[in-house]
Amino acid sequence: MNQYGRSKAGKDSGRVSQMQRENIKSRVEKIRSRLGRKKIGWLVVTKPANVTYITGFSGDDSWAVIGPKRVYLLTDSRYSEQAKDECVGCRIIERKGALAEAAGKLTKRMKTGAVAVEESASIGDLKSIRKNVEVGCRTVGGIIESIRSVKDEEEVVAIRTAARLAAKAVERMRSKIRAGLTENELAGMLEWEIRQQGGEAAFETIVAFGSNASRPHHRPTDRRLRKNDTILVDFGVRYGGYCCDVTRCFVVGQATAYYKKIYEAVKEAQQAAIRMVRAGVKASAVDAAAREAIKRQGLPVYGHGTGHGLGLEVHEQPTVSWLNKGKLRAGEVITIEPGVYIPGRMGVRIEDNILVTEGGCEVLTLC
Amino acid sequence: MNQYGRSKAGKDSGRVSQMQRENIKSRVEKIRSRLGRKKIGWLVVTKPANVTYITGFSGDDSWAVIGPKRVYLLTDSRYSEQAKDECVGCRIIERKGALAEAAGKLTKRMKTGAVAVEESASIGDLKSIRKNVEVGCRTVGGIIESIRSVKDEEEVVAIRTAARLAAKAVERMRSKIRAGLTENELAGMLEWEIRQQGGEAAFETIVAFGSNASRPHHRPTDRRLRKNDTILVDFGVRYGGYCCDVTRCFVVGQATAYYKKIYEAVKEAQQAAIRMVRAGVKASAVDAAAREAIKRQGLPVYGHGTGHGLGLEVHEQPTVSWLNKGKLRAGEVITIEPGVYIPGRMGVRIEDNILVTEGGCEVLTLC
Repeated sequence: MNQYGRSKAGKDSGRVSQMQRENIKSRVEKIRSRLGRKKIGWLVVTKPANVTYITGFSGDDSWAVIGPKRVYLLTDSRYSEQAKDECVGCRIIERKGALAEAAGKLTKRMKTGAVAVEESASIGDLKSIRKNVEVGCRTVGGIIESIRSVKDEEEVVAIRTAARLAAKAVERMRSKIRAGLTENELAGMLEWEIRQQGGEAAFETIVAFGSNASRPHHRPTDRRLRKNDTILVDFGVRYGGYCCDVTRCFVVGQATAYYKKIYEAVKEAQQAAIRMVRAGVKASAVDAAAREAIKRQGLPVYGHGTGHGLGLEVHEQPTVSWLNKGKLRAGEVITIEPGVYIPGRMGVRIEDNILVTEGGCEVLTLC
Repeated sequence: MNQYGRSKAGKDSGRVSQMQRENIKSRVEKIRSRLGRKKIGWLVVTKPANVTYITGFSGDDSWAVIGPKRVYLLTDSRYSEQAKDECVGCRIIERKGALAEAAGKLTKRMKTGAVAVEESASIGDLKSIRKNVEVGCRTVGGIIESIRSVKDEEEVVAIRTAARLAAKAVERMRSKIRAGLTENELAGMLEWEIRQQGGEAAFETIVAFGSNASRPHHRPTDRRLRKNDTILVDFGVRYGGYCCDVTRCFVVGQATAYYKKIYEAVKEAQQAAIRMVRAGVKASAVDAAAREAIKRQGLPVYGHGTGHGLGLEVHEQPTVSWLNKGKLRAGEVITIEPGVYIPGRMGVRIEDNILVTEGGCEVLTLC
């Protein structure tokens, strides 16, 4: 095979739907229009989720290049078959050398328009690309991320499906909970149920019993479930490339009055935030609504954000925190996940995934 | 809590061993000595594995800063408890704003020595750091990665343990293989066994039946195992932060003569490469040994590298491919994983983890 053996992809593949084809075309058009305003002819895309977004390709170690006329996928022989099946409307270039070299050769040959690299690329990658690209090479930030943040119908369907699988998986896991299980085993049980539903874990599953739940990002341990105990599970399902991200708390046996109080306060804080969600409202206002509800109960206010966007990545734009002064847009999918953490005693967090609509919102996670 | 509330970490924690303390001290000294030669006073470390390597902290969304006298961990409230437990010999700074802001404030206050950022950081992060750091800010590549590539005793023990758990998990999974299972279910079964052993999957498990194995990075599907079929499993176990990475091929029922021939050829290629491994030999020579063995059999030579380093990350230095002209060093742990792929028909890859020693090597994966 030639070093730059080319093949047209996606044209005849039964796996690519007409909707996906149109969505990808529309995404690339939006990106090109923004690049045009900045007088950029070529964009080197290195972030895996962005590569997937504009090509349909879900493998690793591959870059995309958006040119004035075509989109190219730079991949290698490990992914040739997969790329042919998955790619939509782009040319596949099978590289043998480094990615930056392949990007350089491609843009060099065309000689039109300035070249830009996404700011999510590493400094090292930028240096290599600059070595290989003859013309000047600029950097631009967040163009694709900003477009990705508003989901099209197909993406919402995928997240909804992931959420449905998550509901089933957690329900089946619940029926198997018994004293004596370790956090690690329960995480394994949940991941097994996710696989049974045809999905995969979207990130490292968090299972925290009792006081371990006061660590928002606790890693499962050998701690065993007691007869009277509490469980926090924070997990995600990836299906068709898209993620959901859910946190649920359960009580085994008897719960203390204090735990119940905290659970109710977190639930109320989450509802207060969800009631605020609609297109046009400030993300920081949604964040503040949840925080104030916790404060009113005299409980310690969590230090993390109230939520984040999700889609191809578990964490994407927009962030729902005091740091984001922007407004929510219809079509964004966000988490709302306030919590209360009492170190050494307990932790409660409740997390759902919410689709922002013009008039309000829709909760996608129903479990 | 103050914006920069500080606490000393790791001093009294029973979870941190004396060996770990000394190893981390020695790592930081090696890094400082290399920084000194480049007249760098401060290094901002953004890559999660590098942060873990010099602080012991295993959480996300945190940076480390190596100063002339101290190491700092910049984290947030989600990780406060975990940081206190895990960190060794560093100061924990709990940020409320952006990471770059916290790094800027820290280096600004000290006013000594040039500041550098690792080349693995994103362009966007570099821009933010430059906004927040008053003095000039340089970039340096691969200092920590190069030191990390040679493992200390504690790290080899961790990889060895991960490899032992992997052997047990795959053995238990094998006993449950039966026709009718889907690739997805088998991946779930293996991950469950990994959890049962107290480990976690180090990366997305690859399970490929029959012709699906011709895609080196196949993702498990609903394809069911037939009575006469082949299985390729490429999986990793993470234990104590360290990974192993193993590929095994199994036959269910009858294998064709062609499959057997290919399996033997891959096994032979792997042995040819392993026989080459010792400190001082060129990585590209090890790569060539495996490739030539496949060629001699008249089979198509794989397009991916023959192997890669592994440790805190599944892929780290050194790469074992035609692109690496460097020599292997004692203490490096690498994979050797040649394969033969016949699109539409079959794929075989065999992968083991090898410790490079002065006189030769040791295979760590015995399953």
